Amino acid sequence: MSYVGTVAARRFDAQITSNFARFHQRDDIFCRAWWDPSIRSPDTESFFKASRDEATARRGEGFQQRDFALRNASWAVSDDYANRNFDPHDLREGYFDPLAQTRPLADEQEKFPDSHTAAAHIKAVAKLFGADLVGITLLDRRFLYEASVDARTMEAKPNAVPEFITHVIILACEMPLELVQMYPSATAGAATGLGYSREVHVCRLLSQYVRNLGYEAIASINDTALNVPLAIKAGLGEYGRNQTLITFQFGPRIRLAKVFTNLPLACDQPIAFGVHETCQTCTRCSRACPPKALPFGDPQEGALSRSNIRGVIKWTSDAEKCFGYWAKMRADCAICIRVCPYNRDFSKFPSKLIRFLLRTRLRSLGLWLSDRLRSGVRRRPSVWWRRIESSAGSRERESR
Amino acid sequence: MSYVGTVAARRFDAQITSNFARFHQRDDIFCRAWWDPSIRSPDTESFFKASRDEATARRGEGFQQRDFALRNASWAVSDDYANRNFDPHDLREGYFDPLAQTRPLADEQEKFPDSHTAAAHIKAVAKLFGADLVGITLLDRRFLYEASVDARTMEAKPNAVPEFITHVIILACEMPLELVQMYPSATAGAATGLGYSREVHVCRLLSQYVRNLGYEAIASINDTALNVPLAIKAGLGEYGRNQTLITFQFGPRIRLAKVFTNLPLACDQPIAFGVHETCQTCTRCSRACPPKALPFGDPQEGALSRSNIRGVIKWTSDAEKCFGYWAKMRADCAICIRVCPYNRDFSKFPSKLIRFLLRTRLRSLGLWLSDRLRSGVRRRPSVWWRRIESSAGSRERESR
Repeated sequence: MSYVGTVAARRFDAQITSNFARFHQRDDIFCRAWWDPSIRSPDTESFFKASRDEATARRGEGFQQRDFALRNASWAVSDDYANRNFDPHDLREGYFDPLAQTRPLADEQEKFPDSHTAAAHIKAVAKLFGADLVGITLLDRRFLYEASVDARTMEAKPNAVPEFITHVIILACEMPLELVQMYPSATAGAATGLGYSREVHVCRLLSQYVRNLGYEAIASINDTALNVPLAIKAGLGEYGRNQTLITFQFGPRIRLAKVFTNLPLACDQPIAFGVHETCQTCTRCSRACPPKALPFGDPQEGALSRSNIRGVIKWTSDAEKCFGYWAKMRADCAICIRVCPYNRDFSKFPSKLIRFLLRTRLRSLGLWLSDRLRSGVRRRPSVWWRRIESSAGSRERESR
Repeated sequence: MSYVGTVAARRFDAQITSNFARFHQRDDIFCRAWWDPSIRSPDTESFFKASRDEATARRGEGFQQRDFALRNASWAVSDDYANRNFDPHDLREGYFDPLAQTRPLADEQEKFPDSHTAAAHIKAVAKLFGADLVGITLLDRRFLYEASVDARTMEAKPNAVPEFITHVIILACEMPLELVQMYPSATAGAATGLGYSREVHVCRLLSQYVRNLGYEAIASINDTALNVPLAIKAGLGEYGRNQTLITFQFGPRIRLAKVFTNLPLACDQPIAFGVHETCQTCTRCSRACPPKALPFGDPQEGALSRSNIRGVIKWTSDAEKCFGYWAKMRADCAICIRVCPYNRDFSKFPSKLIRFLLRTRLRSLGLWLSDRLRSGVRRRPSVWWRRIESSAGSRERESR
């Protein structure tokens, strides 16, 4: 284990106190919007309705028919899987239940020379199937949901990951920068929906592959376990003030999914590249949050509501305020992702320089430079639509 | 219309004779493998079985457990959609039936200033959703199947594209070059499966988007109509001796799907960039075809079997010989795609040069250069597996 990895792993473990208790998925704010009268409201109902049925809600730029049309279409594959076993099986695949497997496990197990080869093999196949980042960690059962949720009754139900499951493959898919720059808007919400639909795609294929190799595989999106702590353990990034995983390659601009397996795989180790220290001084996300749901100051132990996990020293959001804002807007908000100084295109030199500075004592210079470049400033959806409508014909020009 | 476009459009029309008859999907060789005793055999049954249930067939390099595991996993999303309405609705989405729509059409129609803006808009969204190429053409009903197929009985059934449908959006997804270079093998078959799964994804999202804009959209993969002639009319490429669409950007290394709609869209025009002339002199695909199913000589009118369309002057394959070879191998063959001189990575300069030469009188030099670069030579699956297993860790090195 590298020195940085050891420090990062120790820091992770030190954040967890004796008060720790596994999280009940029923306490997730999205679940509570269905069963908890203190959360459920005409606004939350309209939010869910606008996500699926209505493409015609209208409230100014970024919330017109085309914007909701784009947002709602981007979820289509994720929705199809979420709905396919609801009737009559009461399953919500990807939300409360893993993606169902439809073919038998292969009788024979493919043998790998060692767990490092197996890990490299699986990572390459995951990328071939469309994952942008892949990390592997041992299954830390603390981050499995204490109980799952029955999709019809919204009551708790057992969360059964078999004892023989040992590893988790964490998958990340990038959200398009051009869309994320438009949060808050229904247009930008397409970044979230595309992420979910892509994650379903990759997870479905990869879990099928592992099962075809003769090992168990459970394909999971938001169901079954908390993604962020598992992704940190799998070395995909650091935890940020904005409650997201901050990756080296895409900053916070990713969606996470996972495949649980009993295939023996070499594990990754946590990484550190200055995010924790940057978030200590940078409060751009907290300052930009319209409902003031994000914290200032140091990481603390303590839950603001039942929707926060207990016994972890970390930056914690007020999930009720956060989701209340989403519901009013009828669209998901990710301003905290948009304004993050790590939300950059790291193929560009200035972004690489900023990322480098943010891991040194010249951190303030990095933040200043990020602001100077107007990173994080919201782009207007109407401008984006005009741009994509005028950029056509490039293929035609190229091929003639 | 440009001069090249006019010539290409005239050439297309001139190929269709007075003997033309619309194609019955039931005559497709894959359908006949189910209902036609002259095609159905233990080999064809084993072929279909190996595609789905068996990941453990074994016949040397490229046909071992991991190879079939990869191939069969890559189809998972396409298979899920193909199966989801088979019981009890007798539908095979993507094969005999369009992808089912699950939400109501939006009540209001988004208005575009003109059809060119609408076309640019749709193309940009299709690419955001994952399409690599997009073209648009008027619906030419000659290329709708005369009749579709009932998935349970394999009998003909009406192919109903409503009269008010006017346009077709053609979508192409690239198949990974590294996989295509390994045909024939089960490993390479993952290129086909990934293509199908991706096409389902893009088609599902794009058709939902068009419907959210208030226009009808029918999401179609191999069902409902012939893809290649519609793609030629939509300007995505030229027809090749190997029976595929040869695109400017990826050569023959693509999969096709389509969305039928009544949204008024500006149309593309056919293109010509030397493929027809190159295929006249180049017979690499015909020479490389193990069962000798591909033609030499000029395009001709005439069907070799009921699986060929009638009344079109074109290069025509012997579909029975072609599929017979697939069935024996238990995997799809695309040697004719692998060896095509247009099967190149056109981001590289030598490939751009070859493509340029192939549209000039220096065509023979282009073909010679392509051979000199050993383009089209089969890569060994065992070598590919070793390479992907040894290339891991690059992410880790980058981020520390």
